[in-house]
Amino acid sequence: MKQTSTKDVKFTTVFQKLANRLPVSDDTVSETALTILREVRKEGDRAVIRYTKKWDRLDITPATMRVSEKEIQAAYRDVPSDVVKSLRYAANRILAFHRRQKVSGWTILKDGVNLSQRVHPIERVGLYVPGGKAAYPSSVLMNAIPAKVAGCKEICICTPAQEGIINPATLVAADIVGISEIYRIGGVQAIGALAYGTKTIRPVYKIVGPGNQYVAAAKRLVFGQVDIDMIAGPSELVIVADENATPSYLASDLLSQAEHDEEAVVVLITPSETLVKNLLPEMKRQQENLPRKKIIAASLKKHGLIIITYDLAEAVGLANEIAPEHLSLFVKNPRRYLKQIVNASSVFLGEDTPQSLGDYIAGPNHVLPTGGTARFFSPLSVDDFIRKSSVTEYSRAALKKSGHHLIRIAEMEGLTAHANMVKIRVGS
Amino acid sequence: MKQTSTKDVKFTTVFQKLANRLPVSDDTVSETALTILREVRKEGDRAVIRYTKKWDRLDITPATMRVSEKEIQAAYRDVPSDVVKSLRYAANRILAFHRRQKVSGWTILKDGVNLSQRVHPIERVGLYVPGGKAAYPSSVLMNAIPAKVAGCKEICICTPAQEGIINPATLVAADIVGISEIYRIGGVQAIGALAYGTKTIRPVYKIVGPGNQYVAAAKRLVFGQVDIDMIAGPSELVIVADENATPSYLASDLLSQAEHDEEAVVVLITPSETLVKNLLPEMKRQQENLPRKKIIAASLKKHGLIIITYDLAEAVGLANEIAPEHLSLFVKNPRRYLKQIVNASSVFLGEDTPQSLGDYIAGPNHVLPTGGTARFFSPLSVDDFIRKSSVTEYSRAALKKSGHHLIRIAEMEGLTAHANMVKIRVGS
Repeated sequence: MKQTSTKDVKFTTVFQKLANRLPVSDDTVSETALTILREVRKEGDRAVIRYTKKWDRLDITPATMRVSEKEIQAAYRDVPSDVVKSLRYAANRILAFHRRQKVSGWTILKDGVNLSQRVHPIERVGLYVPGGKAAYPSSVLMNAIPAKVAGCKEICICTPAQEGIINPATLVAADIVGISEIYRIGGVQAIGALAYGTKTIRPVYKIVGPGNQYVAAAKRLVFGQVDIDMIAGPSELVIVADENATPSYLASDLLSQAEHDEEAVVVLITPSETLVKNLLPEMKRQQENLPRKKIIAASLKKHGLIIITYDLAEAVGLANEIAPEHLSLFVKNPRRYLKQIVNASSVFLGEDTPQSLGDYIAGPNHVLPTGGTARFFSPLSVDDFIRKSSVTEYSRAALKKSGHHLIRIAEMEGLTAHANMVKIRVGS
Repeated sequence: MKQTSTKDVKFTTVFQKLANRLPVSDDTVSETALTILREVRKEGDRAVIRYTKKWDRLDITPATMRVSEKEIQAAYRDVPSDVVKSLRYAANRILAFHRRQKVSGWTILKDGVNLSQRVHPIERVGLYVPGGKAAYPSSVLMNAIPAKVAGCKEICICTPAQEGIINPATLVAADIVGISEIYRIGGVQAIGALAYGTKTIRPVYKIVGPGNQYVAAAKRLVFGQVDIDMIAGPSELVIVADENATPSYLASDLLSQAEHDEEAVVVLITPSETLVKNLLPEMKRQQENLPRKKIIAASLKKHGLIIITYDLAEAVGLANEIAPEHLSLFVKNPRRYLKQIVNASSVFLGEDTPQSLGDYIAGPNHVLPTGGTARFFSPLSVDDFIRKSSVTEYSRAALKKSGHHLIRIAEMEGLTAHANMVKIRVGS
């Protein structure tokens, strides 16, 4: 891990780079995605099948694209029953948190005017579940449960099956949340199929779920045609620690974050040089025993950073400016600093709250804004699967009383016919 | 207006075209937008100034890009005081409706686990206000008020000033809602300036407001870098009417919608052929006296459609399938049909509720999803200007009690270091 201090002359440069890591779209990736999307739009299943063969080395037909009910049930044979039990435990925790997010419509009735806001679920949504280096059944729970709570009638999953294999735990997780419409396709071709529809896959109204840069580019390109959740980037963890932090815990959290992939961002901010001195050998020791130690080493080298600050207040301020996906506070009385933190998407308080709780079982969603986008995006939630509408009803008397205001504004805007709508009913 | 009936053999074709009018992105427009965005990203103010000269025939400098406080105050001289009064009336109505949308954070505390959802305003947002054929001060109110209610600290406006002129009522509307940071720029260059920032304009975190197809394409392209509201398309009104509808009222509403621009979509759905017979001469009569009659004629010819249905239930069903921006119910007991309507963005009940109430003074937002996107987008609201975050805190005992579930799922996903975070604290 690189080290810097806020006293360094070069600190501002280093920090600016970190704070301004907002994803600027890669034009080459976008162009590739656009080509595939165009082919899926034009050729439907044929293009999906062609790209699935090309990228996933998998031969499918319209008949085998969808995972059969039998395959889903067979998956239970390959997942230990205590893992199934733990997935069910996680699902129930996630359900409890997301149920609290549900909102209802309301009405304001005053002076002959009746105004309502109504809430409707999005009727059909598609979940993208990455395959790739690791399989993530937890992703299925996190994406599907808010949609279920929102009341979406149809939820389907697309997940790439490199060389035909879908992790059985992914299928079990889908079954736990009640999804049976699963397609063994991924990448840009899956996003295209969900957005435009093919003969086999009916189009959805919203696509959610993380993916690689091609999936992200494709989602951005189909936005407007359908809704999407957010543009996912590499995972990030910032830890603010004071001198009381336990080096072994701290080390385990930093290593865990680096384990995701080589692009994972891991930052420690602390005023305590002693802590850093004790931390480094502990990290080295723990790292040796981890199966993914090569990925960890690469990630820490590329994006690992330790910042030594003047004091704790400065550390908290910097963490907020970074606007990270995950922020852990390894400090005494962590709640005291919460007010200053408005830009982190998911905050973990105290040493007894390892960040992986948020990945799996705590309840809040693990689909979170990255790359500084916590400044304007939210964790995936029930809100992402509803839409609202308005209802307006005026009495004749109410229209008569306020119509002149409308007439004045409409005429000033040059929209005479808009003014006429009122004039013809209640005079000017 | 074209006429069809659900009994026609060709009806399904006509209707499918209407129901599937979802905007497929125009690649040529996107390519133009991408070129301008790249130049703004690279050259900043220089590119903004160049394109403002090219498209708006306006010479600006970094010093004159921003509208001065003096100009804003001077605008009051050019707006009749009763129009100012009506804009204030509208602002207060919009404020009252949007205040009801505000949500608060919450906490679930159970068994040593403390989970919160927090709510934060987006700190800096940009509003795009179209200039062009007509000026829309009402747009300023509709975009700015939800942002103000959400608590956004900084709100700026970009609006094109063809040949230097910004409608004084637009400036007055901005002043009424308390916005003083206004730039006389529009088009793709304004979206680029807001997204990437220039020397003169600091970047925003979210861009909202309608615009032409270039503005829409640019917004889609910068999405991810910043958040955007939605992709706006031509305005739409569907009216469902029964035999009790008053032809003159109905005519005024259809004409008003057609007045927007030539791409405006105007659809009447009714089981009553008598109503249609009485409506057509009334439309002709009213149309003659309207200043924008040429636009109206073009719009009605291009996108005007009357559908004769078997009965009222069928009419309501079709209206819902169209998923229009605006839906008016000119029927007896309109509330009876509301339950069936889940896809219209803004619904107007009864003849005494002309749709223009929603454009100006009723209170609900007039920035609404079009093109069938009401199936997944919502009216602009306070929700668009907030973001949420989660907070998780476990006690040591709670971690000890549930940690084994986390360990099992993490190990099954191959993320050993994630499991270690718990093991190192509470054992396996």
